Amino acid sequence: MEYRTYPEFSTHYPLILTTFMKRPVKVYPNEIGVVYRNHVSGEYFRFTWIEWYKRTCRLANALNSLGVKPGKPSEPGERVATMALNTHRHLELYYAVPCSGAVLHPINVRLALEHIIYTINHAKDTIIFFDDLMLPMVEGIYDQIKNTVKKFVYMSDKPGLPDTKIDNLYEYELLLQQESEKFEWPYLNEDNYATLCYTTGTTGLPKGVMFTHRALYLQSLHLIAQTSMVNDPTYVHLGENIITMIMTPLFHIHAWGAPFHYVFMGVKIVLPGTFTVDGFCELVQTEKVTTVSVVPTILALLLEYKDLDNYSLSSLKAVGVGGGALPLGLKTKVENKIPGFTATSGYGMTETAPVTIRAFVKKYMANWSKEKLDTVRVKTGISIPGLEVEVFDDNEKKIPHDNKTIGQIVIRGPWVMEKYYKNPEKSADVWYDGWFHTGDLAKVDEEDFIIIADRMSDIIRSGAEMVPTVLLENLAALADFVLEATVVGVPDEIWGEKAMAIVKLVPGSDKNEQDLIDFLTVEGVDKGKITQWMLPKLIAIVDEIPRTSVGKFNKIEIRKNLDKFLEKAKDMKKA
Amino acid sequence: MEYRTYPEFSTHYPLILTTFMKRPVKVYPNEIGVVYRNHVSGEYFRFTWIEWYKRTCRLANALNSLGVKPGKPSEPGERVATMALNTHRHLELYYAVPCSGAVLHPINVRLALEHIIYTINHAKDTIIFFDDLMLPMVEGIYDQIKNTVKKFVYMSDKPGLPDTKIDNLYEYELLLQQESEKFEWPYLNEDNYATLCYTTGTTGLPKGVMFTHRALYLQSLHLIAQTSMVNDPTYVHLGENIITMIMTPLFHIHAWGAPFHYVFMGVKIVLPGTFTVDGFCELVQTEKVTTVSVVPTILALLLEYKDLDNYSLSSLKAVGVGGGALPLGLKTKVENKIPGFTATSGYGMTETAPVTIRAFVKKYMANWSKEKLDTVRVKTGISIPGLEVEVFDDNEKKIPHDNKTIGQIVIRGPWVMEKYYKNPEKSADVWYDGWFHTGDLAKVDEEDFIIIADRMSDIIRSGAEMVPTVLLENLAALADFVLEATVVGVPDEIWGEKAMAIVKLVPGSDKNEQDLIDFLTVEGVDKGKITQWMLPKLIAIVDEIPRTSVGKFNKIEIRKNLDKFLEKAKDMKKA
Repeated sequence: MEYRTYPEFSTHYPLILTTFMKRPVKVYPNEIGVVYRNHVSGEYFRFTWIEWYKRTCRLANALNSLGVKPGKPSEPGERVATMALNTHRHLELYYAVPCSGAVLHPINVRLALEHIIYTINHAKDTIIFFDDLMLPMVEGIYDQIKNTVKKFVYMSDKPGLPDTKIDNLYEYELLLQQESEKFEWPYLNEDNYATLCYTTGTTGLPKGVMFTHRALYLQSLHLIAQTSMVNDPTYVHLGENIITMIMTPLFHIHAWGAPFHYVFMGVKIVLPGTFTVDGFCELVQTEKVTTVSVVPTILALLLEYKDLDNYSLSSLKAVGVGGGALPLGLKTKVENKIPGFTATSGYGMTETAPVTIRAFVKKYMANWSKEKLDTVRVKTGISIPGLEVEVFDDNEKKIPHDNKTIGQIVIRGPWVMEKYYKNPEKSADVWYDGWFHTGDLAKVDEEDFIIIADRMSDIIRSGAEMVPTVLLENLAALADFVLEATVVGVPDEIWGEKAMAIVKLVPGSDKNEQDLIDFLTVEGVDKGKITQWMLPKLIAIVDEIPRTSVGKFNKIEIRKNLDKFLEKAKDMKKA
Repeated sequence: MEYRTYPEFSTHYPLILTTFMKRPVKVYPNEIGVVYRNHVSGEYFRFTWIEWYKRTCRLANALNSLGVKPGKPSEPGERVATMALNTHRHLELYYAVPCSGAVLHPINVRLALEHIIYTINHAKDTIIFFDDLMLPMVEGIYDQIKNTVKKFVYMSDKPGLPDTKIDNLYEYELLLQQESEKFEWPYLNEDNYATLCYTTGTTGLPKGVMFTHRALYLQSLHLIAQTSMVNDPTYVHLGENIITMIMTPLFHIHAWGAPFHYVFMGVKIVLPGTFTVDGFCELVQTEKVTTVSVVPTILALLLEYKDLDNYSLSSLKAVGVGGGALPLGLKTKVENKIPGFTATSGYGMTETAPVTIRAFVKKYMANWSKEKLDTVRVKTGISIPGLEVEVFDDNEKKIPHDNKTIGQIVIRGPWVMEKYYKNPEKSADVWYDGWFHTGDLAKVDEEDFIIIADRMSDIIRSGAEMVPTVLLENLAALADFVLEATVVGVPDEIWGEKAMAIVKLVPGSDKNEQDLIDFLTVEGVDKGKITQWMLPKLIAIVDEIPRTSVGKFNKIEIRKNLDKFLEKAKDMKKA
């Protein structure tokens, strides 16, 4: 007699996103799970978990009707692209596509048009789901993608299809209406590809990164688990009573994983369409949002907002900051403005899904002074449990943990990408000697904290020395008259490069360039944080600092228009 | 040109216990991580994480020197057995053996001797590490295992080897001294077997269950993650400031996973040798223990302890209760005695590693009254996230969630065993139709909570009806004069079986059998929790209720000595 065993339901039970989707439906079927506010009309849409789940089932059936083919580990499923903001429909696509076996490609609609066209054709997207707001953009690139993309689905809060040249256009809500609300989700192989994201391409063409169900599952689980280990005395345990607003665009590296771990946790998810300061304030007040993740710029925009005090924002407890260093000055200003709202830093990149390092108060630090703890909360942090993160010198050796030596961050672990999609050369550039090389520079302090110094391409090489621009930026942001500051290198005959600070002052400030130098001297040089020669040689006070599509300071853009900034800049040596 | 990728360091990065071991060493190298107190001598042994880690490296080298062979997924590594209590050495073995590729077999030394001999020979253990206290037991079984076991290692707080007939006997501390404190831990395949546990064999010979690294890793991670989701208003978030005492024997299903998830969390682990009431109280007071997991009996023993009030136990915050239902009465009594100490129930079995269900306050319950919440905290609970747990009727269909219908708990998920070791027949008994069948009976209430009714073999079949003995036991324990109560079926000419309650009163109580019937009538029958005919027909008031090796009420033992209990029992029909 032969006996069978069930490895697929035990030791090899697959780690797939389907498990995440099913949990809130089982535990909280009739609670409001997803809230979407149209940032243009101000209209609200609310869904219980079971309603959202049934819509997702209908969508999976619709994908099937549209002929979308699932894949297998050795061969990615059909690529289903989105050009969409943070809406309930986008969140439905986040589960219906991967959990039915296809690959979700959320297109970063803030990329340059030629890059968008490139990613669609490179990914071979056969179908694109797009928001009504994206119609002009889709029409604009239509001729260059129509040989690749066979079908288009129009997503709108209003019924009907627009008058357009786009062929094979379907209406999202109509597709859903026509389908059954039941769907038998397959037990996929955990090595099936789930998503495809592209890098922002600041240094060339965007590169594709595919993530498996397993990688996304394990990242989420480790992130959630780390929360159980948090020792920060300001941490407020909310459990499933977290109410999160997904601020990071869903088209930007899965909004840093939010659609995965927050669905698994069964917490209420608020979707704001796109970020607007007034929309943010209204949603926090109405939905009692507790937890957000943002780029630093958004915090600066909030501080600038003249009507901020008209809203009740007291529900806010925690903000995770990524996509750029969190300057201590910005943190302090925000927390003074919104008491109880604690900002902490984090780090990651497209290739790492992205979160890999987070601020973390070690248990023996818990009774440190607030001032000392705040420096811990902004110094990037330590590795998420389950990852190996090191900082290597040029010989692939660990650098000394002396808070001085600078090396490159290298990572390996369950949610680091294996290779760039169809790009072995670029893969070999980053993966060698058993480590993924991030290209980001950092130092490590005596407490074993990793402190991001800079992108390798951002570092200023002045003479034989390197100027850590992030350090200067953070120092400058400490000044109460500075709203934002970035530092770039400009060519210099003698030193090769010299540092130019580009600064936006707080509204109404009457301070000038020399005030900044004075501040940096007192807070930086005199306190031993920087040396005299690191002080910026040029300072430009501007109305706006250019940003990238993901809200970081756009140093590429600044370099392109360097003359414009140099014109405004004051030479501090001459001054 | 060929490019290589690194799946082993990215998408296929192995989920192995080595990752757990390395975390506290990296984050808290110089903090005290492991405290062991010899329960006989009262002597303390403290180790920083780096000290513990170096000892574990030495042990791995020693295993290598002793010729222990690693395995691969298709073939378990050599079995290394332990006969040991909860000591730092046992915790060292918990990592050195699996992380070097061999299989750890913690022998349940409370099994009957013939069962111990059986498991050693069935497992083909080639080496046994045993505590000095176990010497007489090892000598006693030596002749029946010496053909299987080639080497023995003696573990003691004192140097030297005993005078014994055991051949090939090594001294643990000497082995460690001889080895290097560095060890290159291999990147094992996650499907490598890590541990081998045997069931307690209450219904026949013990059955072996092997767990892979992946299964144990994923269970720990899901358990830790669930803590982030907890909504219980009494929950105290401690992060890594948890101080846990591992009370469940390390030889009993990995002490419910404690050596894995607590090491990964980097919390201080206190090891009491074996449980004694005074040892417990002293260690809680000295080490400021916050968190423990126990069988209900241990709580009853604490309540009985006359010197309890002499100790400061205020550090205690949380106790997870498993291995038997948590009676509401016992919970209340303990929490009255130790304010701040919250007891919640859980459920699992050897085959599921074991934890699968835990008490869980859903978020909408958070403002319920304490009385109502307490009923939630004892009604077993809901599935740990990531598992599928259902209750099926005889036709493998979900039972209605009506808090009445009784069915069998079935489970599948990443940490459910795939098969019994070398026992395809028994495997087929439990694994069929894609589900692992636990043999445990439960009902499901309207809130989707699973409430354990009984072991299938424990249920009392009285006429056409089933008497849920756990319900009666829990009701009886609510009486303030009852310390512990169990209910078994005794043969009855008319009904087939009838219920006999075996009761231990609180010290000094002058209550009698009729008082219990009165109590059950008022609290059970009158309140609609049980029907009149479910009342026990016989009540025996005893000094001691027999327990199994793992602290559960030993109904097998009771049935063996039924006459003795019947003699003491009062017939309540006649009364």
